[in-house]
Amino acid sequence: MKGPRGTQDLLPGVTEKWQYVEAKLKDLSARYNYHEIRTPIFEHTELFQRGVGDTTDIVQKEMYTFTDKGDRSITLRPEGTASVVRSFVQHKLFGLANQPTKLFYIGPMFRYERPQQGRMRQFVQFGVEALGSEDPAMDAEVIALAMNAYRELGLQSLKLVINSLGDTESRNNHRQALIDHFSPVKEELCSDCQSRLEKNPLRILDCKKDRDHPAMGTAPSILEFLNDYSRNYFEQVQAYLDAMGIAYVVDKNLVRGLDYYNHTAFEIMSDAEGFGAITTLSGGGRYNGLVQDLGGPETPGIGFALSIERLRMALEAENVELPIDQSLDCFVIALGDEAKVKAAAITEQLRQAGMQTDKDYLDRKMKAQFKAADRLKARFVLVLGEEELENNVIAVKNMESGEQENVAIDQITSYIEGII
Amino acid sequence: MKGPRGTQDLLPGVTEKWQYVEAKLKDLSARYNYHEIRTPIFEHTELFQRGVGDTTDIVQKEMYTFTDKGDRSITLRPEGTASVVRSFVQHKLFGLANQPTKLFYIGPMFRYERPQQGRMRQFVQFGVEALGSEDPAMDAEVIALAMNAYRELGLQSLKLVINSLGDTESRNNHRQALIDHFSPVKEELCSDCQSRLEKNPLRILDCKKDRDHPAMGTAPSILEFLNDYSRNYFEQVQAYLDAMGIAYVVDKNLVRGLDYYNHTAFEIMSDAEGFGAITTLSGGGRYNGLVQDLGGPETPGIGFALSIERLRMALEAENVELPIDQSLDCFVIALGDEAKVKAAAITEQLRQAGMQTDKDYLDRKMKAQFKAADRLKARFVLVLGEEELENNVIAVKNMESGEQENVAIDQITSYIEGII
Repeated sequence: MKGPRGTQDLLPGVTEKWQYVEAKLKDLSARYNYHEIRTPIFEHTELFQRGVGDTTDIVQKEMYTFTDKGDRSITLRPEGTASVVRSFVQHKLFGLANQPTKLFYIGPMFRYERPQQGRMRQFVQFGVEALGSEDPAMDAEVIALAMNAYRELGLQSLKLVINSLGDTESRNNHRQALIDHFSPVKEELCSDCQSRLEKNPLRILDCKKDRDHPAMGTAPSILEFLNDYSRNYFEQVQAYLDAMGIAYVVDKNLVRGLDYYNHTAFEIMSDAEGFGAITTLSGGGRYNGLVQDLGGPETPGIGFALSIERLRMALEAENVELPIDQSLDCFVIALGDEAKVKAAAITEQLRQAGMQTDKDYLDRKMKAQFKAADRLKARFVLVLGEEELENNVIAVKNMESGEQENVAIDQITSYIEGII
Repeated sequence: MKGPRGTQDLLPGVTEKWQYVEAKLKDLSARYNYHEIRTPIFEHTELFQRGVGDTTDIVQKEMYTFTDKGDRSITLRPEGTASVVRSFVQHKLFGLANQPTKLFYIGPMFRYERPQQGRMRQFVQFGVEALGSEDPAMDAEVIALAMNAYRELGLQSLKLVINSLGDTESRNNHRQALIDHFSPVKEELCSDCQSRLEKNPLRILDCKKDRDHPAMGTAPSILEFLNDYSRNYFEQVQAYLDAMGIAYVVDKNLVRGLDYYNHTAFEIMSDAEGFGAITTLSGGGRYNGLVQDLGGPETPGIGFALSIERLRMALEAENVELPIDQSLDCFVIALGDEAKVKAAAITEQLRQAGMQTDKDYLDRKMKAQFKAADRLKARFVLVLGEEELENNVIAVKNMESGEQENVAIDQITSYIEGII
């Protein structure tokens, strides 16, 4: 029996790396004063239709949707933002004294896609959402946090791309210009883009099939349609990034795959050689209308999400070795029935005192137990044979120096505490 | 819009407690040399039919089962053991040099039940599985780890109940005795028990409806049917628990809800007053046939699982306060446009240097910014007004002592590092 297609098992040796990455991301979030929120693995399907957008590939093609025993339409979450905003509205977090509300999440997401390198059907996303502030400094903070997530893990070949999608007025003007621009060549576009032309022409710019169509290069840029407020907002975001020492490139063609973005949009790419072509690691942006769309009061918001799988691929591409310690403090070897019971008690004592300790559970001979201790990289091996038991001592061998010493059994925990 | 029935959102203020509990459980696992495994949220439905058991309530009534876009029958995992064993077999972990294979997992599980206090449709389980050893010391280790999971978090009103379900021979003899015992009163039992009588009569002893039927009290106990090997095995488990100082009660009526157990079965209960009647917190047991049932080589195994929700209920019942620190290191206050940009850069610097730092994002006045700093329990408030900016300093106020000092802006990070 195998696990379902597009999913993976993370096994010991690998999970330690994930733990390290997650601990770093949690520590980073704490320093930026973002607090964890945990929403359910599944939601009412309607949430994603409304919150991610009916015209997106995610909602149209990629959702794990099913009917539960209570006849509700349920969907495994394909991303994190809609759920976080639903929870923000449901629990009225906008009414709390501390504002803005700064949240992070980390957990599995689900999209039914063709599985390939870096694209699994179940994948893990870390993301943050800052709700309640429309301050360009907020946008810069989220971008800084995103960049530092990669930098602090050791990545160096990073490229930050930003753009503004403007406010509603700017977007509407741009939208009309895009419709005017692409309508004459509508028949030459892919069927997805033909339907996008009516519903959401901005996303034509993001189409992989029509990427090389001549009309793409000459399409009107949103930056030409930004009104004063939007242009000033975007300039201030850049001023904050400059002051914070964060390098970026403005790319007027950057649009994001989800419908709800406005103003700032950004992506972080890796241009590490081992990573192949420049590839997106993560992205985010501002979504000032989403809280209202989901039934809450008018509340600005901005967030970003990164895939841990892609992050780990980038770490591998740059040959970053995470500092994982896989050693053991003590391994307790026992010979004889009485010694085995005593060894279990000593092992339990050492563990309670904080030592990573193990023993044999396969009735192995002395030599094989030493081999097991070696393989587990034990720093100290404690040997309890018949002779030691008779003298109420246990032999402690330092596996690095080779030194050995007998220690009274009732002193063993404090002895080990003293040398470790 | 609300989250689905039977699920919950964990919000800031609560997630910190979960993080604390999870960190404790991970540290405990490391000390016992258990390593993390992460399996997918969903599996092929067949896995649970075979691995949990067709006659169990879980499989018959409570699974979230659906068909994916590739026409596979998929089920959200209702428990952890079947997935871990599937992964153990798929990745041939039995072939690794380090044996037994000692694994832990922590993550959401899903059962479609009537939601009630301590019983959610999505809940989080922590569990361990030790595969590859049939040593009574292994059973004692798993029980010790389970007990310490509660003890180290501060629970005191704990009761450990153990039993043996024997090996296959013992179970078959007992099974026949149960059939002989209950058959004469079959018509008086509930319909579930009537069908259990043929398929799995042991589980009649676990029935809540028929609990008070006179035949229950006189039912033959498994302990009378243990053969020499099973009796000796159970005695050794008890000898190990005694040596490790772990108190327990033998309850011959303890059977576990899943089909795959043999030999040692155990449950841990809370008898804290606030918890109401004595209530099961967690349980586990030995399952020597499961690896083979799922297509692997004959491999003994033992494990246990606990619900974090129930654990947290028990902590509340015993009024255990987890030591959560909710303070902030620094809050940076800025007045004026130029100061705001500078403050963002200083905030970013402090965060990169490891300090939990925040600032205002709502264009608040000085007094309101101080209030925000207070609410966030900031230890130091850094004030950057026009005067400070002119003199290239920032005012640092110690919120506990009330002392205030001007510090050169380019020294601020090392200054804060020195006093924190």
